[in-house]
Amino acid sequence: MAVDLSYSPEVQDLTQRTRAFIDDVVLPIENEYAGDIVAAGGDDLRRELNAQARAAGIFAPHAPVELGGLGLNMSDRSPVFTAAGHSTFGPVALHLGAPDEGNVHMLSHIASAEQKDRYLTPLAKGEIRSAFAMTEPAPGAGADPNALRTNAVRVAGGWKLNGVKRFITGADGAGMWIIMARTHGEPGDRGGATMFLAPGDAAGISVDRYVHTYDRAMIGGHCEVTLTDVFVPDEDVLGEVDEGYRYAQVRLGPARMTHVMRWMGIAERGHEIALDYVSEREGFGGKLGDLGMIQQMVADNEIDLAASRALLTRACYELDQSEHASNSTSIAKTFGAEAFSRILDRCIQMCGGLGVSEDLPLARLANELRPFRIYDGPSEVHRWALAKRAVGRARKQREAGVKHV
Amino acid sequence: MAVDLSYSPEVQDLTQRTRAFIDDVVLPIENEYAGDIVAAGGDDLRRELNAQARAAGIFAPHAPVELGGLGLNMSDRSPVFTAAGHSTFGPVALHLGAPDEGNVHMLSHIASAEQKDRYLTPLAKGEIRSAFAMTEPAPGAGADPNALRTNAVRVAGGWKLNGVKRFITGADGAGMWIIMARTHGEPGDRGGATMFLAPGDAAGISVDRYVHTYDRAMIGGHCEVTLTDVFVPDEDVLGEVDEGYRYAQVRLGPARMTHVMRWMGIAERGHEIALDYVSEREGFGGKLGDLGMIQQMVADNEIDLAASRALLTRACYELDQSEHASNSTSIAKTFGAEAFSRILDRCIQMCGGLGVSEDLPLARLANELRPFRIYDGPSEVHRWALAKRAVGRARKQREAGVKHV
Amino acid sequence: MAVDLSYSPEVQDLTQRTRAFIDDVVLPIENEYAGDIVAAGGDDLRRELNAQARAAGIFAPHAPVELGGLGLNMSDRSPVFTAAGHSTFGPVALHLGAPDEGNVHMLSHIASAEQKDRYLTPLAKGEIRSAFAMTEPAPGAGADPNALRTNAVRVAGGWKLNGVKRFITGADGAGMWIIMARTHGEPGDRGGATMFLAPGDAAGISVDRYVHTYDRAMIGGHCEVTLTDVFVPDEDVLGEVDEGYRYAQVRLGPARMTHVMRWMGIAERGHEIALDYVSEREGFGGKLGDLGMIQQMVADNEIDLAASRALLTRACYELDQSEHASNSTSIAKTFGAEAFSRILDRCIQMCGGLGVSEDLPLARLANELRPFRIYDGPSEVHRWALAKRAVGRARKQREAGVKHV
Amino acid sequence: MAVDLSYSPEVQDLTQRTRAFIDDVVLPIENEYAGDIVAAGGDDLRRELNAQARAAGIFAPHAPVELGGLGLNMSDRSPVFTAAGHSTFGPVALHLGAPDEGNVHMLSHIASAEQKDRYLTPLAKGEIRSAFAMTEPAPGAGADPNALRTNAVRVAGGWKLNGVKRFITGADGAGMWIIMARTHGEPGDRGGATMFLAPGDAAGISVDRYVHTYDRAMIGGHCEVTLTDVFVPDEDVLGEVDEGYRYAQVRLGPARMTHVMRWMGIAERGHEIALDYVSEREGFGGKLGDLGMIQQMVADNEIDLAASRALLTRACYELDQSEHASNSTSIAKTFGAEAFSRILDRCIQMCGGLGVSEDLPLARLANELRPFRIYDGPSEVHRWALAKRAVGRARKQREAGVKHV
Repeated sequence: MAVDLSYSPEVQDLTQRTRAFIDDVVLPIENEYAGDIVAAGGDDLRRELNAQARAAGIFAPHAPVELGGLGLNMSDRSPVFTAAGHSTFGPVALHLGAPDEGNVHMLSHIASAEQKDRYLTPLAKGEIRSAFAMTEPAPGAGADPNALRTNAVRVAGGWKLNGVKRFITGADGAGMWIIMARTHGEPGDRGGATMFLAPGDAAGISVDRYVHTYDRAMIGGHCEVTLTDVFVPDEDVLGEVDEGYRYAQVRLGPARMTHVMRWMGIAERGHEIALDYVSEREGFGGKLGDLGMIQQMVADNEIDLAASRALLTRACYELDQSEHASNSTSIAKTFGAEAFSRILDRCIQMCGGLGVSEDLPLARLANELRPFRIYDGPSEVHRWALAKRAVGRARKQREAGVKHV
Repeated sequence: MAVDLSYSPEVQDLTQRTRAFIDDVVLPIENEYAGDIVAAGGDDLRRELNAQARAAGIFAPHAPVELGGLGLNMSDRSPVFTAAGHSTFGPVALHLGAPDEGNVHMLSHIASAEQKDRYLTPLAKGEIRSAFAMTEPAPGAGADPNALRTNAVRVAGGWKLNGVKRFITGADGAGMWIIMARTHGEPGDRGGATMFLAPGDAAGISVDRYVHTYDRAMIGGHCEVTLTDVFVPDEDVLGEVDEGYRYAQVRLGPARMTHVMRWMGIAERGHEIALDYVSEREGFGGKLGDLGMIQQMVADNEIDLAASRALLTRACYELDQSEHASNSTSIAKTFGAEAFSRILDRCIQMCGGLGVSEDLPLARLANELRPFRIYDGPSEVHRWALAKRAVGRARKQREAGVKHV
Repeated sequence: MAVDLSYSPEVQDLTQRTRAFIDDVVLPIENEYAGDIVAAGGDDLRRELNAQARAAGIFAPHAPVELGGLGLNMSDRSPVFTAAGHSTFGPVALHLGAPDEGNVHMLSHIASAEQKDRYLTPLAKGEIRSAFAMTEPAPGAGADPNALRTNAVRVAGGWKLNGVKRFITGADGAGMWIIMARTHGEPGDRGGATMFLAPGDAAGISVDRYVHTYDRAMIGGHCEVTLTDVFVPDEDVLGEVDEGYRYAQVRLGPARMTHVMRWMGIAERGHEIALDYVSEREGFGGKLGDLGMIQQMVADNEIDLAASRALLTRACYELDQSEHASNSTSIAKTFGAEAFSRILDRCIQMCGGLGVSEDLPLARLANELRPFRIYDGPSEVHRWALAKRAVGRARKQREAGVKHV
Repeated sequence: MAVDLSYSPEVQDLTQRTRAFIDDVVLPIENEYAGDIVAAGGDDLRRELNAQARAAGIFAPHAPVELGGLGLNMSDRSPVFTAAGHSTFGPVALHLGAPDEGNVHMLSHIASAEQKDRYLTPLAKGEIRSAFAMTEPAPGAGADPNALRTNAVRVAGGWKLNGVKRFITGADGAGMWIIMARTHGEPGDRGGATMFLAPGDAAGISVDRYVHTYDRAMIGGHCEVTLTDVFVPDEDVLGEVDEGYRYAQVRLGPARMTHVMRWMGIAERGHEIALDYVSEREGFGGKLGDLGMIQQMVADNEIDLAASRALLTRACYELDQSEHASNSTSIAKTFGAEAFSRILDRCIQMCGGLGVSEDLPLARLANELRPFRIYDGPSEVHRWALAKRAVGRARKQREAGVKHV
């Protein structure tokens, strides 16, 4: 027992191979699609890249070994996913993108043996993609999950689901669904929610439209989905009835952190581009990179990256020890999402006119990052949760007789 | 002589009529084009909107009265241009957008009577659009104007111009050109630059491509332009030879401020949208607009808008008194550009998932605003200029015997 | 009617004379006391400085002319008070400090003729100092004025006051009191409050202790005061019974702005000191003032000062037009208080080790400024008020049929 | 090899005992002295507290075991020093304050056996205190060490030192000196510097005055010291001649991190006080701690503390692996120093009037922290160093053929 921040030689090697694959194989393809990256190139390209990643021995680093993955824990995923995140096509190529990666994670923990066969195996192997249908349009579940309105009603042999979902990532073309629906209480109360599994072609699931957003790189888009009398048999209930909120936490902590990893890759890439630019470009009698105001931006990027990485390391360590790491995942997510936006903004500023043009990918990458301060819990909701716990802790201390004032 | 911050009833009325025209006529059209706003709809639409604006008595508020404008000074332009800026199509509709408005301003001050007839009159009336060709690709003139490389060589009866220009707003379809070229010294020295006029169809001017950028609403784009042996006769030299840098200042101060006005309109619109949203949307047991963290964002927007407006008022007042207002225009531009980015960012955050989607125009508007921290002098260059003057002032005081340390 | 930001030659001259008086007469005295500036040197020094200021024709620029002042309106006070604020002893010297200046302002508007004779005249002339007793220790009136607990009970011929007050500026040695007490309702409700006048030696008023704070320059300190059966006859009720909250607003708007003026003087002084330092001090192969990171701090100070000044100008203009300028005074106060803290912080950073030492006054001046983000309404309360009004405005618009979303 | 962020049970226990000792023994004494904490109570109190710490088994956790310390490496020092830092008297009490702790660290690495006997042993045991004399008044060595002017001239049997030093922490009453003097080159060049040892009563060392600063808790003050023909025999040269700059780095990295640890203790204490306050205090219809704007400050404190801690952990880990950790120590120091200032500032704001008063220690603690953004290298110098390395790295990559633009 002692502080150790090293990665095993295997993980270091995997990280380097991942980065090389991204630079050599994936980035050239991303650049081809840059003008129109909606859907990250589509499923044909995805399957092709998956095959190459499999051949390179870097496919699905998080998935269970028995299902063709590399079985990395959260700590070890961190440098590998970050390397993959350098291209917005990287997560799709290595099959470690949202929501699939989080769904694999959760199904590994909660699904029954039969559910694993039917849903997890093809998902982990990349034969299908998946969707996680929780968020709803106002006044339904968004930043506030208690507002959940999609409901599941008991019927013979199973449940019947009705409702509208929005911002469902990867919905278009999804081969399987995890659907969160209310099985207890009223919207606004916590009550009870349940997770339901469904095949991609389940009757009653209609993908109505893409909600176009700042970010464009998610295969299958962020979609609006209507559920009309979707029948889910009892064997497709994931885990226990009414325990959906708890399972969502099992999924959300790690999923948040893998988001941070991937998006840190984007921030690192932006920083590398800007450094390359200012180290070469002349202006005001020297290289831009030797001017104090540019140096300040460079240094702030270095600091923001180091802090994001250090907080991520802490959160992953805690997640590997226990499922309960709400504080450290909230902190890493909130800090990281804000830091990455700052970083790209500085990169753009350092590159001047070129920075706001499509001649560099910076503006596009910044647009990929912006929503991350909202997705997976807006910064404000994480801050609210952090403060509630801290103030609650103080109250308990005071009740226990500890006084600071 | 006493502080007065009021506008005349005429200007107040014009402002209201402008805002009404934007809301009733222009915004519906912008919304139609929202999916593809490149070039602000094109010149046919521009001419149609111009006619409607003329009919409404709000066309070209800045242009000389004798040329069909309303002859407003800088102070009075401020509320009117801001109202027009609420739509990204507004400046085109009222013919008060960049670079035309700045070019009209400069030509009114510097052009000969004959040049006014030939270039200013059709431009002021909206018969043609114009381009101002100063910026160049690296290593040419950008943030650092002394790097100017396009050169003009004396030939019989005039000058021959060669060079490459980049980020030339409105170039595609421009009916006239103002071209800045070096007539003295070498790139990197100040030397001397001269402004040359040319008709839209001048031989040797080639608009090569659009440089696609974050912002999309500029009619005629931001283009890359090659000048190959462009002949400019002596009568089309604007003002004096070698005085181009000085004239650029005449143009830039006011042009910067009208930029601030127009983009403040975008910021105000974003704020109105976000206020509308949070005043209605429920969450966490009440309206979002009653939550403390949202209130903080709302208040910070109010503060940023008020400060931007107050600094703009100061700079316009100084410009109306004298051409020399470098400090106050640098401050208003730098503060405003940064404040507007902050404001839109908060608006997006307040609107959550909707904020990053195209279901609201916020993400698009934020993208329109981002480049403004770079265009017309990056924030860093303005800060450098402000600091140089302040430190120089301190040196002089010390030499004069005033000591503070 | 047109924007005018000029001051009359008289005001310009008065500003210059004030600044000269501060530099020549007041700053040398402040420096003497620097090690121990509690109470700004005491009342003997105050009277001496007042006499000199009177002789110089710059005494009490805000007080009515008939009472020996210069009768300036809010707009004209602005540059003069700022000049006086360059020394922390300046406001006392010119008798324009808090709370006297605000009390003179309020009594001029509200007091009866007899009250003016008895209280306003000696106060305006500097024969006595005053205290304004509103704030209370928790759980009483602080940021939330509705928590007012000091109560006034009707007795024969007047009222009997009981309560505890805290942070009462100038209490030690005050020659007159304005006391806010509840005459209606319960703590926590708004109810009604009334303002009572009392002579300095009124029975039952006990100044218990100085509450030592970051800032040290207030003559008479910030004190804790107990009121025990203080009898106030009917003729010493200021204005109407139960109208105290409304009168407090009459006082607070202007008093906030004169605070901003005075504290802007401190910020300007800090900036001048730092500029002097960096324009001379060598380091890293040149003058510090030519390094980019220093230039950024210099420029940010210039921007912050300009924005504070512009917002102050706006608020003063509105106050001169009407008593109702809650938004603009909240904005100017909040922005100014935060900007001034940032400015002094940058000044300290620019001066390095010297900046945090008493060899320069910067650390002391920063400590004078810090509380201003709390005094006269914490930034959070102003932001809350700004947001409430903005969101309320949006609600009304929506009810009136205007929709932005 | 795998990420591990746990501390051994021994270190956890030591941390808890340290915190208990601070709370039970040291804080009550600090509070007694609060009104006048210059010199942390003096050497008699120091010896008394040292004895108690020794009895409690928590004395000098960093010192070699053979010299009475606990021999902790950098990683393990981190939680212990932070616990000690909760009181500004804590570092003196446990003998782990600056500059002694850093001097013990450096002497352990560099001193000869004889020098260890003579200087290190009594210092490690707390029999004496020490001073590290490097910084000089302008135009000498400050943020820029190359400006070193104190010179050492070769004389028979040793060296003769002359110069002026400033901000020499602990100088008043120091029992031994480490003096940095130029032995090669001219001020402004790097040249060569050498470290010299001297007893507390060495002839020619004159402690002239305390430079009073924002911070007050350093025993022995920050002093100005004149060196006049100070003779140092050859056996008191520390390490090699001309290698002083290199040794300074050996000292500075760890010393910077222990500074971060101690000052993090102050930040944690401030946060605990503010949490206690807002969890109890009523206002605006509830507890302050349940208001959104307060929650935002609480959460930002939690985030800033977590990030500072995570960066410190990284830097300490690297220092334990190797002496070369310039980037990570610069980042941890810069981020931490700025974060701690932000934290205390928020604490003060949360506590309102009480926050700026001496009724709480927050204002005093904030003043202790402010200089840390300047001491041990101003933030600007660390940013400059970080940027130089990052830009240099980019240049090398480009030369090696890696291109990002």
